[in-house]
Amino acid sequence: MNDRVEFEVQEREVIYRAIATRRDVRRGFLEKPLPDQLIHRLLSAVHCVPSVGLMQPSRFVLVSDYDVRRAVHEAFLQANERALATYTGDRREQYAKLKLEGILEAPQNLCVLSDPQSERGHQLGRHTMPETAIYSTICAIQNLWLAARAVGVGWVSILDPDRLSEILYIPENIVPVGYLCLGYVDRFERFGWESRIPLERIVSYDRYCADPEAENP
Amino acid sequence: MNDRVEFEVQEREVIYRAIATRRDVRRGFLEKPLPDQLIHRLLSAVHCVPSVGLMQPSRFVLVSDYDVRRAVHEAFLQANERALATYTGDRREQYAKLKLEGILEAPQNLCVLSDPQSERGHQLGRHTMPETAIYSTICAIQNLWLAARAVGVGWVSILDPDRLSEILYIPENIVPVGYLCLGYVDRFERFGWESRIPLERIVSYDRYCADPEAENP
Repeated sequence: MNDRVEFEVQEREVIYRAIATRRDVRRGFLEKPLPDQLIHRLLSAVHCVPSVGLMQPSRFVLVSDYDVRRAVHEAFLQANERALATYTGDRREQYAKLKLEGILEAPQNLCVLSDPQSERGHQLGRHTMPETAIYSTICAIQNLWLAARAVGVGWVSILDPDRLSEILYIPENIVPVGYLCLGYVDRFERFGWESRIPLERIVSYDRYCADPEAENP
Repeated sequence: MNDRVEFEVQEREVIYRAIATRRDVRRGFLEKPLPDQLIHRLLSAVHCVPSVGLMQPSRFVLVSDYDVRRAVHEAFLQANERALATYTGDRREQYAKLKLEGILEAPQNLCVLSDPQSERGHQLGRHTMPETAIYSTICAIQNLWLAARAVGVGWVSILDPDRLSEILYIPENIVPVGYLCLGYVDRFERFGWESRIPLERIVSYDRYCADPEAENP
């Protein structure tokens, strides 16, 4: 591994492009599983990142077994039915048409967990903001997403975490943080669920301002 | 912006290297502030990323004002004194010697906030896991960290979030997620607070296993 910390201009562009072209993939997964070597490379990349107090709270369950994925998919269907029931009219119709996961199509799923009460790290940085343990795991997920840009990654949050814990034998002290579908894909796509908010409306200076654009025209 | 989604082998290496060489910077910040153009570029990069239901919950307060930073620094000192008091013996001595933030040395600080109750995104993906709103903001922070690899970024979690909200006028419905110190730096360094855990001990297959290495020797 090249550990040079400086980045050339064109290398920075690569990073910006990886960030900008990240997609949440829900369809188009190919059957061929990711090779063990690639999985190991991805997990190594996300494992070797900073965490609060170097506690390294992230844990991973790689799910290939079809029966386990089917049980997770059933949990998704139940949660999604409850979600659908909260919408009415056009929005309901739009929601019903969305393809929101690729649990069975993706050959591999990855459940990312966090052990927020771990003694590792000796509580450094967690006295006032204990939530930073789980935040460290989210940073690992975002790293995985970028490292896996050559493959497709889809994050499924329409799952009851307690049901997911039952299916995957996750004990109470371990928090299921993200359930990801992994696989090679034949395309990347965009959806039309919500429009984008301009940057000017969310950045304020020195102190918080609810609508900076309105106050600093 | 080049939107090509494929990455060449050497481009992937750049991404892996950015992930691997990310550092939490606490000292060595230079006085020269980051130019507005760079700040705008960084925030644009992190703003244009996926979020749950495209709700885009992240909000940013860029803090340059010295008095505001001094108030935040005082809040750090208080929180850090309470943290120090929880350690004893060698560990306490080691903790006392750590330099844990660069609030005053860094010419700019960035408080990253989340609006988890926002109606934007119409609750998509948040019925069963509402915490994904804040998770989306953490993903943005990790992106910022990688986009800003040419500069130093340090995450300060030794702050009482309520006190931080007072100082920065953050209303109750907005969650302070991360307080970052930003600036050019003259070096990157490592600390010796905790040792690393091997990857094999945190990856299990198909179902969770508390110590996979012990069970799959």
